Amino acid sequence: MEKSGNRKSINEFGKFGLVNHLTRDVKPSNKSTITGVGDDSAVIDSGKDLTLVTTDLLLEGIHFNLIYTPLKHLGYKSVIRAISDIYAMNGTPGQVMIALGISSKFSLVQIEDLYEGIKLACTKYNVDLAGGDITSSITGMTIGVTAVGTVEKNNMVKRNGARANDLICVTGDFGAAFMGLQLLEREKKLFIREKVTQPDLSGFEYVVGRQLKPEIPVSTLSELKNKEIFPTSMIDVTDGLASDLLHICRLSDTGCRIFYSKVPIDYETSRVAGEFDIDPMTPALNGGEDYEFLFTIPLEMIETIKTIESVKVIGHMTTSGSGCFIVGDDGSEVEISAMGWKE
Amino acid sequence: MEKSGNRKSINEFGKFGLVNHLTRDVKPSNKSTITGVGDDSAVIDSGKDLTLVTTDLLLEGIHFNLIYTPLKHLGYKSVIRAISDIYAMNGTPGQVMIALGISSKFSLVQIEDLYEGIKLACTKYNVDLAGGDITSSITGMTIGVTAVGTVEKNNMVKRNGARANDLICVTGDFGAAFMGLQLLEREKKLFIREKVTQPDLSGFEYVVGRQLKPEIPVSTLSELKNKEIFPTSMIDVTDGLASDLLHICRLSDTGCRIFYSKVPIDYETSRVAGEFDIDPMTPALNGGEDYEFLFTIPLEMIETIKTIESVKVIGHMTTSGSGCFIVGDDGSEVEISAMGWKE
Repeated sequence: MEKSGNRKSINEFGKFGLVNHLTRDVKPSNKSTITGVGDDSAVIDSGKDLTLVTTDLLLEGIHFNLIYTPLKHLGYKSVIRAISDIYAMNGTPGQVMIALGISSKFSLVQIEDLYEGIKLACTKYNVDLAGGDITSSITGMTIGVTAVGTVEKNNMVKRNGARANDLICVTGDFGAAFMGLQLLEREKKLFIREKVTQPDLSGFEYVVGRQLKPEIPVSTLSELKNKEIFPTSMIDVTDGLASDLLHICRLSDTGCRIFYSKVPIDYETSRVAGEFDIDPMTPALNGGEDYEFLFTIPLEMIETIKTIESVKVIGHMTTSGSGCFIVGDDGSEVEISAMGWKE
Repeated sequence: MEKSGNRKSINEFGKFGLVNHLTRDVKPSNKSTITGVGDDSAVIDSGKDLTLVTTDLLLEGIHFNLIYTPLKHLGYKSVIRAISDIYAMNGTPGQVMIALGISSKFSLVQIEDLYEGIKLACTKYNVDLAGGDITSSITGMTIGVTAVGTVEKNNMVKRNGARANDLICVTGDFGAAFMGLQLLEREKKLFIREKVTQPDLSGFEYVVGRQLKPEIPVSTLSELKNKEIFPTSMIDVTDGLASDLLHICRLSDTGCRIFYSKVPIDYETSRVAGEFDIDPMTPALNGGEDYEFLFTIPLEMIETIKTIESVKVIGHMTTSGSGCFIVGDDGSEVEISAMGWKE
């Protein structure tokens, strides 16, 4: 069955690479298709504005573990995950659709809890639940979430618009959701091994909250618009700051330098990382699920961006071919690498 | 954990019922949301035309069995399944997006085969593959397909527009895909029990083809438009003719009478049903996966519809509360029932 010369394994590609490989020969033929495979959303010209559509799968055992993820939180997070891609193109989400696969182990009350979370997120972010389907599954729970949004033609921000010397900016802080997950995993093990039924998560509210109920920094995004800061590129940080930054660099054909001391990490994240005996920079760069935004702006916006407290400048873009490095306090440079294909 | 008064089980609802139950309190708040949960697609007002978005999950072991479904066919069918919902609203699909979950048991060549089928269907139906994501899975293969299309505001056909006395029309024939599946299941058992590796499917090309590589009757849909026949309601028959007809009746608040001898069944379907010792009307009414269209038109279109050979009139709508029946050659009436929650 093997085709000759095609023995490369899936893992060698990495996540983005595999999609690119599979769709390298795909050329849009419909006039309405503006952007195809590769960006946060498909972009469709629907007349006056652009319609953005994005779709995501959440699989039990991969994206969530029901031992420590309450279904209401899972529903909430599913919506956040989908609309995050719309915001990342500077769009406004309007609708979400949920395709649910559930096995017979789930009760009606559980599915109602899931939907309660879905509807809560929809209400909070002013998004309509505009469609849905439920199908039976033999393998636990699968959630397909599709989000639809709009953006004015001139305001769309893509992943490939960064240029050398642009400032690299981020909202919020990084690594918290990952450390929250480590804590929940630890409690799960205690639950399984020692039958400890009451998890002790006091003092860890921030990191656990970031894992279970992430929010999108919409007020920061609004502030950017109000101050007329138009990013040259933008991505939502869900795969990890390093991986998502490299993705922007690859698509924009730039290098980058970010500064070790500038990457925002919450105190609680550092403390929990310490407990687990890991450098907090590791989850900050590679943890993922931060639901923050990484974007680039022209250098001349530096004074304006400083007026937005919730945005930090962590580095700058460099010319193509100059590599992607993180610069330590002593001036040493370490190459940034993504952690391969992970979710 | 049970909420009082809420002990109804998931199975009691049926597929459509459960989604309706979970979303009964959902009211669209965005001006652009035209139709929410319940129809084939979400309908979004994007200015001049309407944007249709539909999303679907295909799960290994439920919607497909890789023992007898070649991956290329699976990819093809995934696209057909999604764009079928767009055609069912009288729209034209423009884009599809694929979210794929795959476990480590799949090789690159297999995923390439899947994508070959996806791209083949896209080319055939002039649809752009406009997005995609691949994620790891611990439970085999999961395919999420989202299709986007457009329809002019005046041309959209919904499920709730049928009126008493409207003619009930169908494209194509029914039950073939189901009988094809029975044959493939039989060959699978032979393969497992008796190690017969070469399935004998000669003489069964039509029903097996209908199962593995369904097509959408686009030329018939075009002919309807050309002859200015605007359906009052329409649905794609994927859950079974009976279930989908009942769905139209429920949403349109009508009853119906269809005639036993008018339901189109291919000769090969009947022959295979005979081999399995079942009444061919059973798969025709309840088999599903036909990818044909059921629609209603005003009675006065009867002469025009007769000029389209690929469309058959199988009955008519009746007033609300008069029930849904299939009428035998002897005039006897049997109530139409859906087969519950199945996929």
